[in-house]
Amino acid sequence: MSKILECIPNFSEGRDEEKIEKIVEPFKSTDGVKLLDYSADKDHNRLVVTMIGSPEGLKQSMLEAMEIAIDVIDMNEHTGEHPRMGAVDVVPFTPVRNVTMEEAVEIANEVAKEAAEKFDLPIYLYEDAATCPERENLADIRRGEYEAMKEKVQKPEWKPDYGSDKVHPTAGATVIGARMPLVAYNVNLDTDDLELANDIARKVRHSGGGLRYCKAIGIDLSERGIVQVSMNMTNYTKTSLYQAFEMIKFEAKRYGVNIIGSELIGLLPAQALFDVAEYYLGVEDFSSEQIMENRLLEDL
Amino acid sequence: MSKILECIPNFSEGRDEEKIEKIVEPFKSTDGVKLLDYSADKDHNRLVVTMIGSPEGLKQSMLEAMEIAIDVIDMNEHTGEHPRMGAVDVVPFTPVRNVTMEEAVEIANEVAKEAAEKFDLPIYLYEDAATCPERENLADIRRGEYEAMKEKVQKPEWKPDYGSDKVHPTAGATVIGARMPLVAYNVNLDTDDLELANDIARKVRHSGGGLRYCKAIGIDLSERGIVQVSMNMTNYTKTSLYQAFEMIKFEAKRYGVNIIGSELIGLLPAQALFDVAEYYLGVEDFSSEQIMENRLLEDL
Repeated sequence: MSKILECIPNFSEGRDEEKIEKIVEPFKSTDGVKLLDYSADKDHNRLVVTMIGSPEGLKQSMLEAMEIAIDVIDMNEHTGEHPRMGAVDVVPFTPVRNVTMEEAVEIANEVAKEAAEKFDLPIYLYEDAATCPERENLADIRRGEYEAMKEKVQKPEWKPDYGSDKVHPTAGATVIGARMPLVAYNVNLDTDDLELANDIARKVRHSGGGLRYCKAIGIDLSERGIVQVSMNMTNYTKTSLYQAFEMIKFEAKRYGVNIIGSELIGLLPAQALFDVAEYYLGVEDFSSEQIMENRLLEDL
Repeated sequence: MSKILECIPNFSEGRDEEKIEKIVEPFKSTDGVKLLDYSADKDHNRLVVTMIGSPEGLKQSMLEAMEIAIDVIDMNEHTGEHPRMGAVDVVPFTPVRNVTMEEAVEIANEVAKEAAEKFDLPIYLYEDAATCPERENLADIRRGEYEAMKEKVQKPEWKPDYGSDKVHPTAGATVIGARMPLVAYNVNLDTDDLELANDIARKVRHSGGGLRYCKAIGIDLSERGIVQVSMNMTNYTKTSLYQAFEMIKFEAKRYGVNIIGSELIGLLPAQALFDVAEYYLGVEDFSSEQIMENRLLEDL
């Protein structure tokens, strides 16, 4: 069974088209890697790349792209609205298929180790790859940004997980990690009462006593005259979409409000929907190997 | 978007391992073709191959395998329990992803035309590729089997769709066609009353006034002490699995019987389950391009 991950590296270059094309080149030309999207934002001066592929393909292309980015980006001249600490700012790996979180963490570590040695770069591990709770959150690691990192990396509590305790003179430092893919899932309610949507969102989300891997807020869809519970499902393998849907349904019931539909935004792994079908049909002993298309992915 | 079909050719050789391996070789070595399974039955003296792939890959490998099968099989010496009329007995193409039935019919015609010319073989088109209602059913075309085909092909009403009106001296004749993939779907009931399962099966199936693309019978699962409505969904794009499930649920209700689970048997296209998830979550505007894994299939 082939292993597939998603990787969404962020590079600190959003203005120079020539440099951007150079950086993404390895993602276009490496076997086992499919470049899904790359978008550069001039105000943020930042490039966000989305790709999926095999562990080997992603590792190889990522190291090549890092080498190019470190070569063409000088952080001493970088300005932009988005917080950043390095030329290769942050690199999250997320499991998509036949990959455990442990394996994704391992891949993050392999890339971090090799990049630290090759480019003499301080590297921090974050989210599920973090080596201590203080490093789980990207914002905490990056606080102070590039300009403050020179001193920060030398503090004992911010000693990098891999590489030198001196920032790279032009590329700063990098954060690499592993996390579950976010599934953006919204449920539309048959009312225009935003307060009600917010009440339900609070009930459903983790912070309000609801589902462990669910973030939720109420949103006003004023042009449709309705409101929505807008969610980020942060681990669809542990908190499934049908749980959020059914929970919103029974919470809405106390207000006499109905669900009129839902929305899946952006990319998601097939398994997130197979889980839903399995639940509602009560399927016994289903294996995703029964899906014809999955058999085509085996030889990747 | 890559086009994917399934093809399940049946060859009249189930005993000679060496010949069997020769016949399946093109399915192993052709780009864009994934051999999923091949099983030979000695009593039937028949080889059934299951593969999926691109239109080009399937066409090319199928023609190569036909050439080999025609070369190594002599129908004058063929005996076996399964009805058969040719060395390459029947070749159905079924749409899996981004392929319409019209396109599957076109592929069946292309293979039929090229094979008829190349191998001087009478070829009939069946199911959705049939040129008249009398040829939709494989059993009608094959009636009389290899031994009767010599005369049958010369009758005006049985003039082959492609190729000679003389059977091939050692390979007989071949049936090629297009049909939807069957999804084998069973629903388990919380009772051991087989009559009840049969009653519900009759209500749900097309022939009994139920769903257009559903065949159903009651089955006794005696070792579990329950019964089951066992179904073949003959066109999951038009009659979805959730329709059969919900219909069985409301029919069972009149007997005070509950559904205790269901089973998906064998291979099925991912879309059959995405449809189910979309229905139960009430998803608006979903596209299968949002599925990460599907993006990997684009470059096939």
